[in-house]
Amino acid sequence: MHQTRRIALLISCAILCLAAFAPVATAQQRNPLPVPNIPGYQTLKCDFHTHTVFSDGEVWPTTRVAEAWRDGLDAISITDHAGYNPNKEDVALKLHRPYEIASPAAAQAGIILIPGVEVMEGLIHANLLFVNDPNQFLGLSFLDALRKARAQNAFVVWNHPGWRQTPQWFPIIAQAYDEKLIQGMELVNGSDFYPEAYPWIAEKSWTILCNSDVHSPMPAVYRGGTRPITLVFARTADAAGIREALFARRTAAWANGEVWGTEEHLRALWQGAVKVENSTISLAGSRRSTVLRLTNSSAFRFRYRVRNKPEWLTLREGQVDPLGAFGAQLSASRQAPAGRHNVEIELEVTNFHVAPGRNLQVRLPLVVEVKPEAN
Amino acid sequence: MHQTRRIALLISCAILCLAAFAPVATAQQRNPLPVPNIPGYQTLKCDFHTHTVFSDGEVWPTTRVAEAWRDGLDAISITDHAGYNPNKEDVALKLHRPYEIASPAAAQAGIILIPGVEVMEGLIHANLLFVNDPNQFLGLSFLDALRKARAQNAFVVWNHPGWRQTPQWFPIIAQAYDEKLIQGMELVNGSDFYPEAYPWIAEKSWTILCNSDVHSPMPAVYRGGTRPITLVFARTADAAGIREALFARRTAAWANGEVWGTEEHLRALWQGAVKVENSTISLAGSRRSTVLRLTNSSAFRFRYRVRNKPEWLTLREGQVDPLGAFGAQLSASRQAPAGRHNVEIELEVTNFHVAPGRNLQVRLPLVVEVKPEAN
Amino acid sequence: MHQTRRIALLISCAILCLAAFAPVATAQQRNPLPVPNIPGYQTLKCDFHTHTVFSDGEVWPTTRVAEAWRDGLDAISITDHAGYNPNKEDVALKLHRPYEIASPAAAQAGIILIPGVEVMEGLIHANLLFVNDPNQFLGLSFLDALRKARAQNAFVVWNHPGWRQTPQWFPIIAQAYDEKLIQGMELVNGSDFYPEAYPWIAEKSWTILCNSDVHSPMPAVYRGGTRPITLVFARTADAAGIREALFARRTAAWANGEVWGTEEHLRALWQGAVKVENSTISLAGSRRSTVLRLTNSSAFRFRYRVRNKPEWLTLREGQVDPLGAFGAQLSASRQAPAGRHNVEIELEVTNFHVAPGRNLQVRLPLVVEVKPEAN
Amino acid sequence: MHQTRRIALLISCAILCLAAFAPVATAQQRNPLPVPNIPGYQTLKCDFHTHTVFSDGEVWPTTRVAEAWRDGLDAISITDHAGYNPNKEDVALKLHRPYEIASPAAAQAGIILIPGVEVMEGLIHANLLFVNDPNQFLGLSFLDALRKARAQNAFVVWNHPGWRQTPQWFPIIAQAYDEKLIQGMELVNGSDFYPEAYPWIAEKSWTILCNSDVHSPMPAVYRGGTRPITLVFARTADAAGIREALFARRTAAWANGEVWGTEEHLRALWQGAVKVENSTISLAGSRRSTVLRLTNSSAFRFRYRVRNKPEWLTLREGQVDPLGAFGAQLSASRQAPAGRHNVEIELEVTNFHVAPGRNLQVRLPLVVEVKPEAN
Repeated sequence: MHQTRRIALLISCAILCLAAFAPVATAQQRNPLPVPNIPGYQTLKCDFHTHTVFSDGEVWPTTRVAEAWRDGLDAISITDHAGYNPNKEDVALKLHRPYEIASPAAAQAGIILIPGVEVMEGLIHANLLFVNDPNQFLGLSFLDALRKARAQNAFVVWNHPGWRQTPQWFPIIAQAYDEKLIQGMELVNGSDFYPEAYPWIAEKSWTILCNSDVHSPMPAVYRGGTRPITLVFARTADAAGIREALFARRTAAWANGEVWGTEEHLRALWQGAVKVENSTISLAGSRRSTVLRLTNSSAFRFRYRVRNKPEWLTLREGQVDPLGAFGAQLSASRQAPAGRHNVEIELEVTNFHVAPGRNLQVRLPLVVEVKPEAN
Repeated sequence: MHQTRRIALLISCAILCLAAFAPVATAQQRNPLPVPNIPGYQTLKCDFHTHTVFSDGEVWPTTRVAEAWRDGLDAISITDHAGYNPNKEDVALKLHRPYEIASPAAAQAGIILIPGVEVMEGLIHANLLFVNDPNQFLGLSFLDALRKARAQNAFVVWNHPGWRQTPQWFPIIAQAYDEKLIQGMELVNGSDFYPEAYPWIAEKSWTILCNSDVHSPMPAVYRGGTRPITLVFARTADAAGIREALFARRTAAWANGEVWGTEEHLRALWQGAVKVENSTISLAGSRRSTVLRLTNSSAFRFRYRVRNKPEWLTLREGQVDPLGAFGAQLSASRQAPAGRHNVEIELEVTNFHVAPGRNLQVRLPLVVEVKPEAN
Repeated sequence: MHQTRRIALLISCAILCLAAFAPVATAQQRNPLPVPNIPGYQTLKCDFHTHTVFSDGEVWPTTRVAEAWRDGLDAISITDHAGYNPNKEDVALKLHRPYEIASPAAAQAGIILIPGVEVMEGLIHANLLFVNDPNQFLGLSFLDALRKARAQNAFVVWNHPGWRQTPQWFPIIAQAYDEKLIQGMELVNGSDFYPEAYPWIAEKSWTILCNSDVHSPMPAVYRGGTRPITLVFARTADAAGIREALFARRTAAWANGEVWGTEEHLRALWQGAVKVENSTISLAGSRRSTVLRLTNSSAFRFRYRVRNKPEWLTLREGQVDPLGAFGAQLSASRQAPAGRHNVEIELEVTNFHVAPGRNLQVRLPLVVEVKPEAN
Repeated sequence: MHQTRRIALLISCAILCLAAFAPVATAQQRNPLPVPNIPGYQTLKCDFHTHTVFSDGEVWPTTRVAEAWRDGLDAISITDHAGYNPNKEDVALKLHRPYEIASPAAAQAGIILIPGVEVMEGLIHANLLFVNDPNQFLGLSFLDALRKARAQNAFVVWNHPGWRQTPQWFPIIAQAYDEKLIQGMELVNGSDFYPEAYPWIAEKSWTILCNSDVHSPMPAVYRGGTRPITLVFARTADAAGIREALFARRTAAWANGEVWGTEEHLRALWQGAVKVENSTISLAGSRRSTVLRLTNSSAFRFRYRVRNKPEWLTLREGQVDPLGAFGAQLSASRQAPAGRHNVEIELEVTNFHVAPGRNLQVRLPLVVEVKPEAN
């Protein structure tokens, strides 16, 4: 009985902190959320847009760190508003405090904390990352805030270009762009993807970002699979590495089970995650069919359809689950020539997007031995 | 595509609030968590011990309301500490604010909000429910705080009697008890049940409470099934009804899949939740066995073992899942007398506790027709 | 330790049968899967198309009963093929045996078992329900089998009209239709819905069916929510009641989270399941908004969008989860006239289909009190 | 719309086979269930005790292969009874057929299939693995069957020593043991562990086995985490490798979240699975505490309590989830000496059992830097 009780207690403590004094958030279980590194770079999982009670969010800064650790992230930024602070009657208007409060927890958890602040004019919002002191941006106009950010070599992101409006090349954005004040754009914010804004990533040479903009507590179970994540391909797993990668446009967006990035980066993710377990196969028996086995060592889900294959081979669309393996039925038609063939099957990974309207294409090289048809 | 996107968006919005301006917590899906009413009373699901950033918690007061609605509760109390306020550098020391801030959200969600405050001396903590103004308790000694609470007809709960120590009849508690300053005790706090303190419920005529004492965000999925809940059997579903029921000791504790309360209340919960679908059964065939079907219309899980039954009848222990049905194998031995029998089976509901060391016992009246044994 | 072990054992036994001698399937936990009855009729949950080892399935007949009980069904039919029996080297070609073997288990579980058999010509398959002896259909041509079925007053269903081909008015179907040999059609088979065949339901006055056609074991957790189910609106919960309802076309299809049926039946399902908790509401405060709470006592999920409402009222699309409650944000615009209004909001239930291209529309009558705008 | 439908269809097909002709089980998604190899050996996940319709099971032989692939196994044996064949009226009494039927599916899925048969006398059952032809054992007495098995160099397992009785040194087992007819024992069968029989593993130099003895379909979600698994530490991942390892007693049992095996093997599993992410740590600040991060690359869950540590260090019990990471709070007491210390913490892994009453003990070497206490 005593034994049982202690285990039950332990289990609960593992997921939430119920102690009478518990000023520090202590989620204890982490979902590692593995993603492959790519040649030359570590792949870091980041969320550069979160809020706390210091602007219009609902949680204490340490909570963002605990959630990040639980959810498998490497880095976050707390980007409370400079200027929209509805709690200021109760919570001091000190915008450096979220970073300061969260820092010790981040150090303990091994989470990289990026200083940040959000500025706005109407529905046009921007995140200023790597700023010196977020309090400096209180009272500034939107463009002046961006100019000050540039003077600090901050990284500036146009947030949610389609929030409550259809994305357009708004005058204030045009002005900021002309002054070279913007380096990145949220292609995804929360659950929203902005197809109309997608072409600007290439046209303006902007960096892709994908952030949660979370205000409430972040739920542990997130429908759509994982919380919105900016994948950063960094030389080093630290703030400097993230900064360099952001300016160098080495990022991808991951949300709602879909990934957006460059062809090179997304191909490297596929290659790092998916293996063919049986690339030499034999098609024999009355059905001349077998199971092609694809394993996935990452937390991505890969959905594919077949783009190119020998006509005599049958293979349907499929999906390889996160940390799973998929058995794809492969069979030879009656017209299949007996013998040993080097075959290349081209797949379209339908949830990996490399440009507007274009998905990642990958090749599976196989050796297929077709036996004469049995009766 | 557009269609798909909107649905995905909707799903996410249903569980968390990611909008750029979102000062009010808006969890949209509620788990109704049905429990039966009992004769004469409505059964209300309550958590009378929660914290926010106004003392040492990590969330804004509205979050506690959103969580309560999501989790199927009827009532909560926010009981921030008077005197342990580590955030006071950043958050104003105004202890009436949590109630004030949470009130409009509670009204919208139909959640009953009970004013409360927590006072302490060392490891001895008490919740004062239905107080006029929690700020009045700042700076008072523990006993003076309880005396002031009594003067306001507040309901006083000794919290977590075994927190970081073994429950004992501590002098300060003895003093408070002698002055009739305490009306209830947390038999369960978070995941902790205090067997050493259990006898005091009967000895001191105290009311049972079972609260979360949550500081972090409350997770939507709670290991152990449901968050800790004080069941209140109230004449009316409002603050007055709760107050009357608390003083009248009409409560039960529900945590870790177990329930503690009076025999009368727990029997009524069983009777309101569990039905025998086929109370007239026939045991025929070579095995002379059949399936006795028990349905459960509540969110409780019932675990039972058999205490009394005719010797010739075989029935094993079982459990009826929340909102589920259970098929229990029932069979007649070779010694079973053929014919129609009125049978009463006595079950012990092993997770429903009516006193220290004693579980609820219930009876299943059945009509059993035993057919002559087939060969 | 001993205690813990017994509980663990019990838990496992509750979901699968591991005993050394276990010829009878004994799933013990049932998901009741509540659906509302409709005026004048009980709503029965049925699957009229399943297979066993007696044709090309992979399970013993008792397994189909255990799965049906576990999954909350009221009735099933085992419809092994007459003529496609690839296991006949090992399993006797006795088509009456599945019903015979499954009957005692069905009686114990309270599952209604409908005799059935599947006949075919190429890709055209039909289920003959309520036949006397499935062995009689061995060796008959497709049309002769249907003629014999009619002579027995069997109910004949055209199965999966789009299986491996696009649904067309195939000559053999035309012939059968002209001879009045067909009474129903599978609008859904497994995960396949056949939009091209949908109009025939109205044109030919056919009964809608929705069946699993399961060959493998039926998994307990079914993506899409529930296994395919034919809802039957029956006068009595027995085989005769099902037969009468099938011939009278009182059915609906439920699969992949969507429902297809007549407007009358689907409206009755909504009305039986969904309640507005707070139909008199007040819009006050600076936002003049509140939460409209919809509760759902059924296992259906309801997705809606708003079709008609006063212009000054804002209400977005939403979904009410199975056995859940939904909190829909409702707010008044600046143009809203202060005062008390009787308002009718018209919703389209987008996953409830009453005809090709037409979804169920329902009305929410509300009393809305709009307070003067606060500042 | 069309797009959405195809995805939905694909999802369902991925988990069950609903096609009209589907004689081969085709579960398509595999849970890889990673476990570490140990020095010199591959770790194979096996279930050597399953049944089909050819004795008293409920599924076709191919189903056992599909389940094994889905569940992450490497090898199974189908061990239908020779002599208890209640389906023989309908299913041919040909005991070689399960292996024959399952073989092509096993080859496609990469599952190693071990020939086997179960023989019995009353409640005493034994599995004979690697037999030539299971039909040979029909009609033999229990001991004669074991003698014939030995003549074939089969591997003989005493099954479920405590099934429906308390394990004892039964005369027939004593006789078989004296004749050296038994090489292994099921320490776990299904959900049952047999503490009374555990000492015989060491005393008789038997091999540990842990099998499901599944008769019904194996559910995809198994309470207790994973289905019962015999871990085999094999030189080669094939039948010969398994045979050699079984005779050499290189196995472990894994069921109900617990593991039983030799100290050497279990230590190797821990070492292959668990890493300390931050083995050099600093205890500073007012609490002088930090988070020790343990990562687990395996599907095991590890529960530990602390056995030995410096007195001035506080570390509580914890658990590292499958494929997860755990953050254990580590803190220095006021008595902690400032400075850099090489510390070794000894943990007891409470769910890894190396002998009756003895659990695995492991060491965590840490470098701990204690900073002077802050005020």
